[in-house]
Amino acid sequence: MTIITLTTDFGLSDPFVGTMKGVILGINRYVHLVDLTHEIAPHDVLGGALALEAAVPFFPAGTIHVAVVDPWVGTSRRALAVSAGGHLFVGPDNGLFTFLFAEPGWKAMALEGPAYRLSAVSRTFHGRDVFAPAAAYLSLGVPLHRFGSEIADPVRLAWPRARWEGDALVGEVVHADRFGNLVTSIRARELVSLGPEESLAMEVGDAAVSGLSTAYSDRSPGELGAIVGSSDRLELFVRNGSARERLGAARGVRVTVRKR
Amino acid sequence: MTIITLTTDFGLSDPFVGTMKGVILGINRYVHLVDLTHEIAPHDVLGGALALEAAVPFFPAGTIHVAVVDPWVGTSRRALAVSAGGHLFVGPDNGLFTFLFAEPGWKAMALEGPAYRLSAVSRTFHGRDVFAPAAAYLSLGVPLHRFGSEIADPVRLAWPRARWEGDALVGEVVHADRFGNLVTSIRARELVSLGPEESLAMEVGDAAVSGLSTAYSDRSPGELGAIVGSSDRLELFVRNGSARERLGAARGVRVTVRKR
Amino acid sequence: MTIITLTTDFGLSDPFVGTMKGVILGINRYVHLVDLTHEIAPHDVLGGALALEAAVPFFPAGTIHVAVVDPWVGTSRRALAVSAGGHLFVGPDNGLFTFLFAEPGWKAMALEGPAYRLSAVSRTFHGRDVFAPAAAYLSLGVPLHRFGSEIADPVRLAWPRARWEGDALVGEVVHADRFGNLVTSIRARELVSLGPEESLAMEVGDAAVSGLSTAYSDRSPGELGAIVGSSDRLELFVRNGSARERLGAARGVRVTVRKR
Repeated sequence: MTIITLTTDFGLSDPFVGTMKGVILGINRYVHLVDLTHEIAPHDVLGGALALEAAVPFFPAGTIHVAVVDPWVGTSRRALAVSAGGHLFVGPDNGLFTFLFAEPGWKAMALEGPAYRLSAVSRTFHGRDVFAPAAAYLSLGVPLHRFGSEIADPVRLAWPRARWEGDALVGEVVHADRFGNLVTSIRARELVSLGPEESLAMEVGDAAVSGLSTAYSDRSPGELGAIVGSSDRLELFVRNGSARERLGAARGVRVTVRKR
Repeated sequence: MTIITLTTDFGLSDPFVGTMKGVILGINRYVHLVDLTHEIAPHDVLGGALALEAAVPFFPAGTIHVAVVDPWVGTSRRALAVSAGGHLFVGPDNGLFTFLFAEPGWKAMALEGPAYRLSAVSRTFHGRDVFAPAAAYLSLGVPLHRFGSEIADPVRLAWPRARWEGDALVGEVVHADRFGNLVTSIRARELVSLGPEESLAMEVGDAAVSGLSTAYSDRSPGELGAIVGSSDRLELFVRNGSARERLGAARGVRVTVRKR
Repeated sequence: MTIITLTTDFGLSDPFVGTMKGVILGINRYVHLVDLTHEIAPHDVLGGALALEAAVPFFPAGTIHVAVVDPWVGTSRRALAVSAGGHLFVGPDNGLFTFLFAEPGWKAMALEGPAYRLSAVSRTFHGRDVFAPAAAYLSLGVPLHRFGSEIADPVRLAWPRARWEGDALVGEVVHADRFGNLVTSIRARELVSLGPEESLAMEVGDAAVSGLSTAYSDRSPGELGAIVGSSDRLELFVRNGSARERLGAARGVRVTVRKR
C-alpha cells in the first residue's frame, strides 16, 4: 500500500479534500491517505512548501505527496510531477517544491495530456481533476515519463535563509505554529560556530533572549525563550503563552543571534 | 475494501467522529474511511445535503456515505438507508438526501430493529449508535431489505434552483466556501441559452459583474468576478479576497444573470 | 490491521499529526489510523483524558491509543505505555491516562532506551520521535516489557466526580462540546437514587432546569434543558443555541441536582 499525503489550502469546512480522496480511491483503492495539513493560509505557496519540507523526511521512501496551493489554477501555469530523494510529488508549478531543487538528483515532468486526469477538467479545482488522478496513477506504477515532457526550470521561490552580518547570524520568522511558537530561518547547525548554547543572545524587535532552552518548561510561565525546534530550526516561544502574540511577529520579522 | 465517507456537523474538537470510526472498524476492519467534512454548520441540513451532492459523484460506485446532521435526534424521526445511483447512504430522514430523490431508481429503507445498531442507543448520538453500525453492516454485505421496511416518502427539502423571470435567470447564493467564493443555485448548463460567456451580466445586490472568467486570476487582485466553479455552478469570487465579505452575502441572497 | 488512534493538542494547521502518521507507517504499513481529536486546548491534559475516556470504549479490543498533550516535553517526565481493559496506550506520564487506573488490571511501562524510538529525539516533539514509534512497534507485536521497566506510580489527575451534599448531588462542568452543550461530572447512574427523571431539578449558577429531556428537541428553541448525553453524563443544553454562551459556564462551574 503506497502512502499518498495531501497538503492544501482548502481548509476542512468544504468537501474538497474528501473529494480528492474519492478520485484517488476510484483509481487505486490500495493506498494509505495521510493529511499533512489543509490549513495552509489561502494562496500561501511558501507556507505550503515549508510544511512539506518539515514533514516529508519522516515518511518512508516511495511516498507520494500531493500538494495544492494553487492561486493560478485555470491559467497556463504548468502542472508538475517531481521525483526527488526517493519520494514523488504532484502539484502546480509555482514554487511549492522549491526545497526539492536544492539537492541534485531531482527530475520534474510537466503533467500533460488527457490520459492521467479526469475526463472533464474544471476551471477551479485541479486538485480534484488533475493532481489527485496523477498521484493515483503514480501509485499504480505509471512511470514518470508517461505523464509528459521533462522540464528543467521549475518555478523556485526565494527561500528564507540565514546570513552573516559581521559577527551576527541574521534570519527571519518563517512560521507561527499552533502554540504561537515562532519558527525561524536559522538552522541549528548554523548556530554551532557561535559557541555553546548558553552563550547565545537572540534579538527579535525589542525583545531579547539569552541562551537556548532544552525544554519549553525551562522557562517560567509567561517568559520568552528560544529552543531548537522539531525541524532543527531556531524557535522563539513563550512558556504557557504565545510568542506570536507577545512579539506581534509574523513571517519576515528579523531575528538576530550573537555570541554574548 | 469498501469506502465509507462521513459527513457531519460534529466539528473536529470533540472525539465524536473518531468514535463513529471506532464503531465502524469494530464491525468491519476492511474499509476505507474518508471524511467529507465535519464542519457543516450545526443543524444545517441543507448545507450537509449540498456538500454531499458536490462530493458524491467523484466516489466510485459501491461507496457508502454516512451523513449525520440530526437536530431531531432522540425523537421519532426516522433513520434511513438509501440506495441511489450505485451508492448507499445512511442518515436521519430529514432531507439530507433530497438530491438523491430527483432521479428515479432510488430505494429507501427505514433503519428499524435492534440487529444492526449498538445494543445501547443514546438519546443524543445516533451517529455512533445507529448510523455508524448500519454503514458498517452494509459494508459487510447485509442487504438493504434486512434493515427495515421500505419507505416511499422520505423527507425532502425545498431545493434551491434557478428560475426565469422574463429574460433574466434568477438564482440565489447557496454556500460560501473557504476562500469566500459564493456558490449559487445557477447551473452552467442553464447559462448556455443566454449566449456566450463574455456577454453575461451578473447582479448580486448592488454589485455587478460582466462576463465569466476562465480562471480566478483573470481578474485584478481585489476585483469581483464570476466563474463556473467545480460543481458546475455559477460562483462569484474576489481575486485574492472574499466575495462573501465584499458582498456581505449569505445563503439565500438573490443572484441575477442577463444577456448584456 | 491494528487500529491506532491519535489524540493531541497539536491542532490541524501544522503538519505535526501527519508527520506522526508518516513515522508510524514507516514502521508498520498495516494499521488503521484514526484521529480522535487534535483540538484539545494547548496543554489541557484533563481535556485530553476526558476525550479518551469518552471514545475508547467504542473501539475494539487490541486498539492502540497514542495521546500527546505534553507540556513538559523535553524534561525528565516519564514516557508511558499502558495496557488496560484490552487496549494499549502510549503517551507522556502526566495524568492523561488517569481514568485507566481506576480499575485493577492495568500495567504501565516506562518507555526507555533507544530501540523503539527515532534515532534522533528532538526537544519539542516526542509525539513524532518517541510516542509514534512506540505505538507502531506495539502494533507489530513487540511485547510491553521490551519497552522498559514497569512502573507502579503513574501520574494521576484529580478526577472530576459528583458528591452528595445533604440531599443534593453536586458536580461540575467538565467540557463544553462543539454545540455548546455543557458536559458534567455527574453520571446517569448517580441520578437514579433521586427518583424519576421528571422530578429532578438542576441548578447551574442562577439558572434552573426541571426534568430531563429525552431529546434536545423536547425543549423550545432557545430554552435551556438537561439530558443524559452520549457518555452517560448529565449535560446541559440550549435547543438551537449554546448552553456555554447562555450560562457563561466553563469547566469547574458547579452543577447541583435535587429532587423536586
